[in-house]
Amino acid sequence: MNNPVFLRACRGQSVEHVPVWFMRQAGRSLPEYRALRGTGSILDAIADPVIASEVTMQPVRRYGVDAAILFSDIVVPYHAIDFGVDVVPGRGPVIAEPFRGTNDLARLRDLTALDVAHVTQTVDLVVKELEESNTPLIGFAGAPFTVASYLVEGSPTRDFAIIKGLMHQDPTLFQQLLERLVDITISFLRFQVDHGARALQIFDSWAGSLTRDEYQRFALPATCAVIDGLIDLGVPTILFGVGTGELLDLMATAGSTVVGIDWHVDLDQGRRRVGPKPVQGNLDPARCLSGEKLGVEAAREVLVRAGTDAGHIFNLGHGVLPDTDPAVLEAIVRVVHEEGRAGVQ
Amino acid sequence: MNNPVFLRACRGQSVEHVPVWFMRQAGRSLPEYRALRGTGSILDAIADPVIASEVTMQPVRRYGVDAAILFSDIVVPYHAIDFGVDVVPGRGPVIAEPFRGTNDLARLRDLTALDVAHVTQTVDLVVKELEESNTPLIGFAGAPFTVASYLVEGSPTRDFAIIKGLMHQDPTLFQQLLERLVDITISFLRFQVDHGARALQIFDSWAGSLTRDEYQRFALPATCAVIDGLIDLGVPTILFGVGTGELLDLMATAGSTVVGIDWHVDLDQGRRRVGPKPVQGNLDPARCLSGEKLGVEAAREVLVRAGTDAGHIFNLGHGVLPDTDPAVLEAIVRVVHEEGRAGVQ
Repeated sequence: MNNPVFLRACRGQSVEHVPVWFMRQAGRSLPEYRALRGTGSILDAIADPVIASEVTMQPVRRYGVDAAILFSDIVVPYHAIDFGVDVVPGRGPVIAEPFRGTNDLARLRDLTALDVAHVTQTVDLVVKELEESNTPLIGFAGAPFTVASYLVEGSPTRDFAIIKGLMHQDPTLFQQLLERLVDITISFLRFQVDHGARALQIFDSWAGSLTRDEYQRFALPATCAVIDGLIDLGVPTILFGVGTGELLDLMATAGSTVVGIDWHVDLDQGRRRVGPKPVQGNLDPARCLSGEKLGVEAAREVLVRAGTDAGHIFNLGHGVLPDTDPAVLEAIVRVVHEEGRAGVQ
Repeated sequence: MNNPVFLRACRGQSVEHVPVWFMRQAGRSLPEYRALRGTGSILDAIADPVIASEVTMQPVRRYGVDAAILFSDIVVPYHAIDFGVDVVPGRGPVIAEPFRGTNDLARLRDLTALDVAHVTQTVDLVVKELEESNTPLIGFAGAPFTVASYLVEGSPTRDFAIIKGLMHQDPTLFQQLLERLVDITISFLRFQVDHGARALQIFDSWAGSLTRDEYQRFALPATCAVIDGLIDLGVPTILFGVGTGELLDLMATAGSTVVGIDWHVDLDQGRRRVGPKPVQGNLDPARCLSGEKLGVEAAREVLVRAGTDAGHIFNLGHGVLPDTDPAVLEAIVRVVHEEGRAGVQ
């Protein structure tokens, strides 16, 4: 069986067309998702392997994307070990008792296979459905710094004041926190690969809230440790964050196979900062809100900036916005498959 | 009378110490501000020249900063012409009927001196109080693109989906909207200078939500037009936005005297992108939340990155956070005055 085009592009190998998938392709922008899920908590939907696998498959069927991404959330393993996480619609993850001191380290126990049995059951169901088309499933987790931001801040923030206070005032405790998160993250990702995920994305969504010095000192080592802990699995890893233009060269040293580039950075510039590694990105999701013609035009701009060197995976530069018309994404998949030339032989 | 150090630094001239002021120095972080203002709407406080001038003066007295900044808000002129703006505590500006189409252009009538008489009365009072110390007052306004974001989105957003939809789908209407905002912004800033403001800051706070192409096409020309419309006044202008690392070289072409650099970008790197112009910035406000010792340490890092070339105005890389201990800012002013060497002869 052929190695799928997505996995080859992750390795910088030649491909017959540029592969494409969309962050948050499984979710609110799809009418079939809204019909299936109703208005309950996203954690309830994730806890049900039949629903979660169906949601994972919906965009694969509709768009013909080159990879599926597991329908999950970066707080899932912490919810699973009873850290006290809820995801509030329209607000995001909220922690009943945020991480505040040494005593809270014990609340971050090792993750067992049983804790996330619902996730691996979902992976099993999806992998079976994807077998015929040989479409790879991407598993994912949050990077330790980004997870720490949620656990310490307790709710979404723009300022990151509490987490920055902790890292600068008590770097030892911060380090201990990140070590716990590294272990949990590695376990969570390994379970997903054990059950058939063929690539892994690590979301360091809030890395862009750090200066270069802070990123190097407080976030990058933990991300390196996670990727080190996966290396024997032999699956490609993608490291992605938002607002990371100043950090891309540092992120490229974390050991991932691919670096995701958010839409703030022009893709040609992003490739220069990342160096020879394959990149993923980076259409502004807001450009998909103005109809097919303008969406396709914007996608073509990304393809031009991607160039013709191997190692471009087309994606948005952030998640699909809820108001996106699926027809626009369908048109973009067609154009990327027909016109994307990066690495085509 | 000596030309104040702040104004000389804006011109890249030699100074006896690096000047310093803080964005949002007048506001919630000061106990004397909270005591004076209570819990009413910020627009009510701004409408009262006695209160607004006192709030403007409070940080000047406490910190001994090298410039005052008018206590105001970028929506003030639009509130004044009855566009229907309110500032909701904890949420930000909210527009009852957001800008949606050609018909709404008529709601953006020219700004008269009478519309903003409360603002110029505040300027009068502040300028009189500042006379003895020869401390300059900085006036300010929002840049047209950022104001347009508020007027079109209707409330604070992370996605900028509606404004981006408008600019790409109807660039002519978007252009007409920005032309109206250019006129109003120029008038508003000229009134402030007429009454004694000696420098002007233009906040393009949301410019960082744009790609380079979008910034060049949709935001930069309007900012250039504003600065052009002020050039005969001979006062220094400072152009600032958040998350503008990718845009700094373009912002440097807008014609302002100084470019503000947010804290995401290392200041030495920021100076390289801006070129020979003076720069203002760029301490991460979150670094001021961990006590005097760590705050001063962080300020010293900024001074080192600023180098010894003339043309550095010390500031935060975004506004003072509400939980900031004023003692930390006091300590930072002392250190900048004692140790800041940029342009010192």
